[in-house]
Amino acid sequence: MARKSTAFVTVDFDKPGKQSGFIHIPHSPHDDAWGTTRIPVAVIKNGEGPTAILQGGNHGDEYEGPIVLGEMVRELDPGAVQGRVILLPAINVAAVEAGRRTSPVDGLNMNRTYPGDPGGTITQQTSAFVNDVIYPIGDAFLDLHSGGSSLDILPSAIIEPAADPDHHKRNAAAVLAFGAPLTVVVDNLGERRTSTAASVAAGLTTVGTEMGGGGTVSLEALKICRRGARNVLAHLGILEASPNQPAAADRPVLTIPGPPGYVFASANGVFEGFHPLGTEVRAGQEAGRVHHLGDPSRPPEILHYAADGILYGRRQPGRVVSGNCCLVIAAPYEGQLP
Amino acid sequence: MARKSTAFVTVDFDKPGKQSGFIHIPHSPHDDAWGTTRIPVAVIKNGEGPTAILQGGNHGDEYEGPIVLGEMVRELDPGAVQGRVILLPAINVAAVEAGRRTSPVDGLNMNRTYPGDPGGTITQQTSAFVNDVIYPIGDAFLDLHSGGSSLDILPSAIIEPAADPDHHKRNAAAVLAFGAPLTVVVDNLGERRTSTAASVAAGLTTVGTEMGGGGTVSLEALKICRRGARNVLAHLGILEASPNQPAAADRPVLTIPGPPGYVFASANGVFEGFHPLGTEVRAGQEAGRVHHLGDPSRPPEILHYAADGILYGRRQPGRVVSGNCCLVIAAPYEGQLP
Amino acid sequence: MARKSTAFVTVDFDKPGKQSGFIHIPHSPHDDAWGTTRIPVAVIKNGEGPTAILQGGNHGDEYEGPIVLGEMVRELDPGAVQGRVILLPAINVAAVEAGRRTSPVDGLNMNRTYPGDPGGTITQQTSAFVNDVIYPIGDAFLDLHSGGSSLDILPSAIIEPAADPDHHKRNAAAVLAFGAPLTVVVDNLGERRTSTAASVAAGLTTVGTEMGGGGTVSLEALKICRRGARNVLAHLGILEASPNQPAAADRPVLTIPGPPGYVFASANGVFEGFHPLGTEVRAGQEAGRVHHLGDPSRPPEILHYAADGILYGRRQPGRVVSGNCCLVIAAPYEGQLP
Amino acid sequence: MARKSTAFVTVDFDKPGKQSGFIHIPHSPHDDAWGTTRIPVAVIKNGEGPTAILQGGNHGDEYEGPIVLGEMVRELDPGAVQGRVILLPAINVAAVEAGRRTSPVDGLNMNRTYPGDPGGTITQQTSAFVNDVIYPIGDAFLDLHSGGSSLDILPSAIIEPAADPDHHKRNAAAVLAFGAPLTVVVDNLGERRTSTAASVAAGLTTVGTEMGGGGTVSLEALKICRRGARNVLAHLGILEASPNQPAAADRPVLTIPGPPGYVFASANGVFEGFHPLGTEVRAGQEAGRVHHLGDPSRPPEILHYAADGILYGRRQPGRVVSGNCCLVIAAPYEGQLP
Amino acid sequence: MARKSTAFVTVDFDKPGKQSGFIHIPHSPHDDAWGTTRIPVAVIKNGEGPTAILQGGNHGDEYEGPIVLGEMVRELDPGAVQGRVILLPAINVAAVEAGRRTSPVDGLNMNRTYPGDPGGTITQQTSAFVNDVIYPIGDAFLDLHSGGSSLDILPSAIIEPAADPDHHKRNAAAVLAFGAPLTVVVDNLGERRTSTAASVAAGLTTVGTEMGGGGTVSLEALKICRRGARNVLAHLGILEASPNQPAAADRPVLTIPGPPGYVFASANGVFEGFHPLGTEVRAGQEAGRVHHLGDPSRPPEILHYAADGILYGRRQPGRVVSGNCCLVIAAPYEGQLP
Amino acid sequence: MARKSTAFVTVDFDKPGKQSGFIHIPHSPHDDAWGTTRIPVAVIKNGEGPTAILQGGNHGDEYEGPIVLGEMVRELDPGAVQGRVILLPAINVAAVEAGRRTSPVDGLNMNRTYPGDPGGTITQQTSAFVNDVIYPIGDAFLDLHSGGSSLDILPSAIIEPAADPDHHKRNAAAVLAFGAPLTVVVDNLGERRTSTAASVAAGLTTVGTEMGGGGTVSLEALKICRRGARNVLAHLGILEASPNQPAAADRPVLTIPGPPGYVFASANGVFEGFHPLGTEVRAGQEAGRVHHLGDPSRPPEILHYAADGILYGRRQPGRVVSGNCCLVIAAPYEGQLP
Repeated sequence: MARKSTAFVTVDFDKPGKQSGFIHIPHSPHDDAWGTTRIPVAVIKNGEGPTAILQGGNHGDEYEGPIVLGEMVRELDPGAVQGRVILLPAINVAAVEAGRRTSPVDGLNMNRTYPGDPGGTITQQTSAFVNDVIYPIGDAFLDLHSGGSSLDILPSAIIEPAADPDHHKRNAAAVLAFGAPLTVVVDNLGERRTSTAASVAAGLTTVGTEMGGGGTVSLEALKICRRGARNVLAHLGILEASPNQPAAADRPVLTIPGPPGYVFASANGVFEGFHPLGTEVRAGQEAGRVHHLGDPSRPPEILHYAADGILYGRRQPGRVVSGNCCLVIAAPYEGQLP
Repeated sequence: MARKSTAFVTVDFDKPGKQSGFIHIPHSPHDDAWGTTRIPVAVIKNGEGPTAILQGGNHGDEYEGPIVLGEMVRELDPGAVQGRVILLPAINVAAVEAGRRTSPVDGLNMNRTYPGDPGGTITQQTSAFVNDVIYPIGDAFLDLHSGGSSLDILPSAIIEPAADPDHHKRNAAAVLAFGAPLTVVVDNLGERRTSTAASVAAGLTTVGTEMGGGGTVSLEALKICRRGARNVLAHLGILEASPNQPAAADRPVLTIPGPPGYVFASANGVFEGFHPLGTEVRAGQEAGRVHHLGDPSRPPEILHYAADGILYGRRQPGRVVSGNCCLVIAAPYEGQLP
Repeated sequence: MARKSTAFVTVDFDKPGKQSGFIHIPHSPHDDAWGTTRIPVAVIKNGEGPTAILQGGNHGDEYEGPIVLGEMVRELDPGAVQGRVILLPAINVAAVEAGRRTSPVDGLNMNRTYPGDPGGTITQQTSAFVNDVIYPIGDAFLDLHSGGSSLDILPSAIIEPAADPDHHKRNAAAVLAFGAPLTVVVDNLGERRTSTAASVAAGLTTVGTEMGGGGTVSLEALKICRRGARNVLAHLGILEASPNQPAAADRPVLTIPGPPGYVFASANGVFEGFHPLGTEVRAGQEAGRVHHLGDPSRPPEILHYAADGILYGRRQPGRVVSGNCCLVIAAPYEGQLP
Repeated sequence: MARKSTAFVTVDFDKPGKQSGFIHIPHSPHDDAWGTTRIPVAVIKNGEGPTAILQGGNHGDEYEGPIVLGEMVRELDPGAVQGRVILLPAINVAAVEAGRRTSPVDGLNMNRTYPGDPGGTITQQTSAFVNDVIYPIGDAFLDLHSGGSSLDILPSAIIEPAADPDHHKRNAAAVLAFGAPLTVVVDNLGERRTSTAASVAAGLTTVGTEMGGGGTVSLEALKICRRGARNVLAHLGILEASPNQPAAADRPVLTIPGPPGYVFASANGVFEGFHPLGTEVRAGQEAGRVHHLGDPSRPPEILHYAADGILYGRRQPGRVVSGNCCLVIAAPYEGQLP
Repeated sequence: MARKSTAFVTVDFDKPGKQSGFIHIPHSPHDDAWGTTRIPVAVIKNGEGPTAILQGGNHGDEYEGPIVLGEMVRELDPGAVQGRVILLPAINVAAVEAGRRTSPVDGLNMNRTYPGDPGGTITQQTSAFVNDVIYPIGDAFLDLHSGGSSLDILPSAIIEPAADPDHHKRNAAAVLAFGAPLTVVVDNLGERRTSTAASVAAGLTTVGTEMGGGGTVSLEALKICRRGARNVLAHLGILEASPNQPAAADRPVLTIPGPPGYVFASANGVFEGFHPLGTEVRAGQEAGRVHHLGDPSRPPEILHYAADGILYGRRQPGRVVSGNCCLVIAAPYEGQLP
Repeated sequence: MARKSTAFVTVDFDKPGKQSGFIHIPHSPHDDAWGTTRIPVAVIKNGEGPTAILQGGNHGDEYEGPIVLGEMVRELDPGAVQGRVILLPAINVAAVEAGRRTSPVDGLNMNRTYPGDPGGTITQQTSAFVNDVIYPIGDAFLDLHSGGSSLDILPSAIIEPAADPDHHKRNAAAVLAFGAPLTVVVDNLGERRTSTAASVAAGLTTVGTEMGGGGTVSLEALKICRRGARNVLAHLGILEASPNQPAAADRPVLTIPGPPGYVFASANGVFEGFHPLGTEVRAGQEAGRVHHLGDPSRPPEILHYAADGILYGRRQPGRVVSGNCCLVIAAPYEGQLP
């Protein structure tokens, strides 16, 4: 009641078959008094079975998820589905249309707005709608991220940790089923405002990804993502198992070792990293340098790694300001797995 | 006289040894009535010999040139020089400080401002200074470009065509001496407002490059650039020949076959290219597609190649608007070479 | 107490006679550390009688209300008043000074901020002041809106629905007394954050309007508004009844039939509506089209009405983005009236 | 030569039949190093006959021209044409895509850039292309304007005065053939940088229009425009005469009597005009007033007409700043007509 | 728990000696997915004794505090300390780097955000960190402000009133120990969202300052600030008493007499104040005028003082908009002092 | 002819008596198709005598000139004039209304646009109007500048050097007649695009000023300016000599010794100057330092004077970027004086 929304939807989540429509969030800015933000949604329902929610476009500059989910909207045969698939290929649609991580409407990073606010800004209203209306009708949630404009990341599937050990194992099993070359446990330093944290809080089996990045569309990441989304649906029993499912056991599971896993810029300038993604590095080793291009007689500042591990992410834009994340290290995960 | 500038310089171009200082272009915006735009410049002079002008930062988001020339400012031993090296590592310094192709001060792309205007905006005054003061004291000009924020390009050395056949051969010889994996003749559809076109017009031996891009610093391109700059100085007799000079004959020379060499976006959306850089492609072949992510039920638009050749450049940002350059094809060069 | 404000007022709401002054909301942005947002307010008090609050400028680009209330501030004779009139002709003064629906200070639509927040942004502080200080001393509230920059609307008086049937009838009677050519019941899809919803929640007799629009000042709407504001004061017994009061019975009462009452743009482009305001239309009928002017060979997209009724509102700016409200339909109201 | 352009075109102006394509103006901003501005162009050619150039989108917020010319691109049967029609429905395409009078790329009003500059900004390059490449192959030029975002204007056809009496009569005859309800001679206070002034300078028979405005699409203006464009082609002998051609003699010819024809805002505020378009007014009469809505106790400032005539144009946005054109008067034209 | 933060710190507040590091507030905007806002912090700890928190840069355009605290970070000898000094020289670091009162990241005035919100924007997260983590480990808090860009203020130390008389005396004693030429009791019209109000709420002995301003660095204010910060530490027993401590009794204690203490602009224009800072003025006296420079024939508007006292603050920028604070009066303080 | 303007004026420069009106420069931006930029102008003419042009607002944030000239417009008695005074108190009116050095319309510094361009932007059209229409009817030109937002300058009268010795003496005599505390010869490093350089080029007796600054209105500078403007008119024989004319011989004449006269910021940060205006300094002496407030452990950079002289100007805003003018030195003038 405190959380009553004015949003409305043009699909019926309970109707069998395939429907493609929109969630309308009423929005009343200067240039559109009585219009809406129009978020694409599709439902594919057939027979009995679990409900999987597949989401892309949480960040508007991470393209593999929206492309793959758009293909599913157009191509997935309802007859092949056992249960229900809810597709949200461009959940933060204003950010997607702008190709920006954050919404150009309210400046917010949707993945820092959960559980949202139905009386808040558009992004807060959207996350409130997902939290209050979509999660309660789902069993599993797949949130497809990529590195975005600022990071290039080794394509990987992501385990959002759950406090309950059984829930954690359930998540891990689904993530491993995705079949990415790499699996990483990411808790975002304990951040609770993400969609996957909210999905875990709502009890759903939760799967994340980080695919390529650099603000571009990666051919390789698209392939992994296409296959992985279907693998997860097969794992849940909604689709038939695909024959090309790789063996989970062969792929490493890593985690980011807290603050020391990140190398931050210590000055404004241009960052030159010394190693390609995937390199094994050690704490204390030189990681890169920040150049002062406007005054070349001033020597660049050297940055160092603060943890052992492999180079998992790397800043894309050369230009940095102090505090920017330049490099990310991942180390072996010691926690429980299914 | 019509072209009198108010600029002043804190180095003496005729003094032996190494000096590092600044070109000051007086600039009088709102927040700095009597200040200047302060462009780094270094001169390294020793004995008799030709003068080479090495420039980076023509576009402020192409980092390999400025990094390599900054290293030279700090590390090049004057005793190793025979003649004179003038280093301009960040010529459009406001763009370099902003990490933008174009100047944040006047919005101009410096490489469309030659021969400049000493009574114009800061970028126009800067190109006028290079054109009127620097080119006349030089014998050769090396302009180090990369792909920048919007393009990822196969690292290559660039021949700016000269109308005079001898001048053209002189340019080609110096470019081949650079020793890039690829050499490309680029005339920018006949554009005369670039720094290399102006350098050719001034009679200088002229060498260009396109190194990587994607708005980031490339480890590989840095290596090519470091070696190539020294190779050109060796070719000119200013430095000793480096032992690692590759044989020019082994590397292909290509050119962009005019308008059909470019694949432009035909709609606003997100571009997915179908092939990696270096792929051999044919006119008529499907090249990629533009996705409408805000309305996934609408099928993407297919783009096609319009020329045979290899995929030489590829747009980095996924987001495109109609007219954006998505792909660039290079085909074998049939013109004269040294 | 949790809702303590730092605002102060330069008029005394309890003093007889006419006073014109300002509500000061302390505001501390970059360029004014210790200044205030200065909202015009006038009080006209005489003898015993009810208190009517007349508000304009909730949206800063709806001009008829502020003009008519400004005339009242300058021209209304205190001797003609029986009770009290509180005039707030430009409540969101920063938006009014900018001619924008939303505040340029915090980007907020004041009509989505009730009950406000005295510890929030300027617009939130302003709505908190109205809610906490002004509503409690009033008996009736008239909020004068027009179509604004984005909509052209048939001039009409608006009934904000109240849950309590007696309150609802009281509101309807006052709205019909306004004497607009048309009366419409508008619940904004259940929106509770508007000033009229908050006024109803506070128990005040509440009257709204929608007058013309298109971002301009309408001669006809000004006349309706001038007369209507006085009619409402007469209805409340604060002014003598004006002789030109039309018979309410002759004018239709309509309502917007929920989501189907709106036609939203399905694509970015330029909207061409097929019918003038007031046209009777049917669900399924072609309503207009969205042109792709940058690519004229692409056919425009056709939009359709989704409800029967008359064309009540129409988008003013030709340019639309997907989700913009292009057309609004009103249908006969079936609810209770006085 | 000094005016060499790098633009290229994907249609062949000399080929019979209908072609729809693009003029590409190479454009190299931050986010698109090697892309183009892509301006739609169509050519319809059949048999022998004159060449008419039909242009819309000179200002990007004047929609009737682009809509009507887009219809012609899609619908005009080449077999019905005797000669050649060149259609430029969205000449300042960046402004059209933005719905702005001026280009968002360089801030320029295209209609103040003639004869353009092929080495200038995109808008200057575009007008240079029209001036240097399109005008020389044309016999007649029709430039379809509307009132745009800031003005609402009585739909009218416009005579751009020519110094040569025969040329002037030729223009007037073609304008009268357009068949607008009103014909007005407009010299823009002698402005020579407009496309119609440049077309006259190039010797072409030249026709202008001003259709509605207010930033919206007018049903009535669309009809006038659709019919008028065909009427002009019929007048030139390119199309068969349409049967619904009205008699020119019945419609008035007016002109704007220089500076006194304009009423300018004398203060910042909100403008309320006192009369509807078409009203007959006299010099000295009260024309409207500028309200100070932020301080309603301050009386509004009264504006007066400075010429006799009819009210021909009226500012749309209520908000004005000092110097804004609030009202435009047109008076009978005394000059020569065919 | 509801207030759990993701921030982390690179210094150990409990470790003896001097450490200089950073508070990292994770921040995930478009151009830096996994980076942080990096706020400088230093701890100097030695032996037993109270903990003083010294803060600068609450507003980013008030420079004396950050400069003086930066000197302490570099120069204060840990051996001279008895207890602990926590230095936060640039707490709103994004505002400091921009030279803006308010944060360029979220537009917030940090001094209107207490007690902050660990799930809010960066500025809200920062004030939450100070409130939740720093205040609880401190005994005294010194917040160094200056007049900033918009005000020029007589250098003074500020007493934030405390409700508890003993706490109030404790604050007053510490403020008088600072030894500014002037001491002023400032309650910001009862504002509870400031860092000093939050510090008082947390029970800390609290000292504020206002030093010069005009957006510049004042030689005189630097001297007062340098000496005063050490005087406060001496007063707390953390440093040895400095020999140059002036006698508190000789310096006046004033207060701002509520709303009448401020002279606000009554119109947009350019403000000319009639008196220098420190002038004794009377209520009703002419204080200055607002010029209408765009229309010099219109006479300027006269402003008047509304309270007796001395001129304590004066607007720096000539340009004003209605509501801007032009002048501030301070009158003798009648409240209790130690 | 090439320089034909569309501007028009509402005063008659040849009519006796006092007239106050506007120069209208037609301007056609997005939000005002047919409006004008409206520049205040007044003419006071009586009997025979020379014509003096008095200008303020060349830079929009230098307020003493516009205030003093506005007073003259309102207060100067035509009967007291012998000849003609043309007053342009706010020549760059858009910049004056914005309180910006440069025009918010086209971003230009008017004082770098002479001789202007009647086919250019608004600022270029304005300077063209002054150059082509106003200068030719004048005998003397007084351009009233202050330090503006970025500089605080010792109030002084300015001699713009003339190549012709007689012209130079004529200028110097008029400048000394102004009676400022200080007289300075300023050639702006040879800049020819200023209004005073253009006035000298047109042969007019030319007087400049620099009055205070810091973006504020200075009480002292207003007094000097008020008296000086009348002194110059008396010197020209247009007004009676004022009795308070000081003896020119007692005041020093200085000049800025070229590039060494300026101290530029060598890094981004916050500038602390070590000396107040008027201090005598020596080349090599420490002048100030640039602080790195975001990283207090990094020591500040020291700046040094490069010339002997007195401290004539000082940057107001604490925040600097590399190249900003921090300090200006003036040294004794050795050239010829009357």
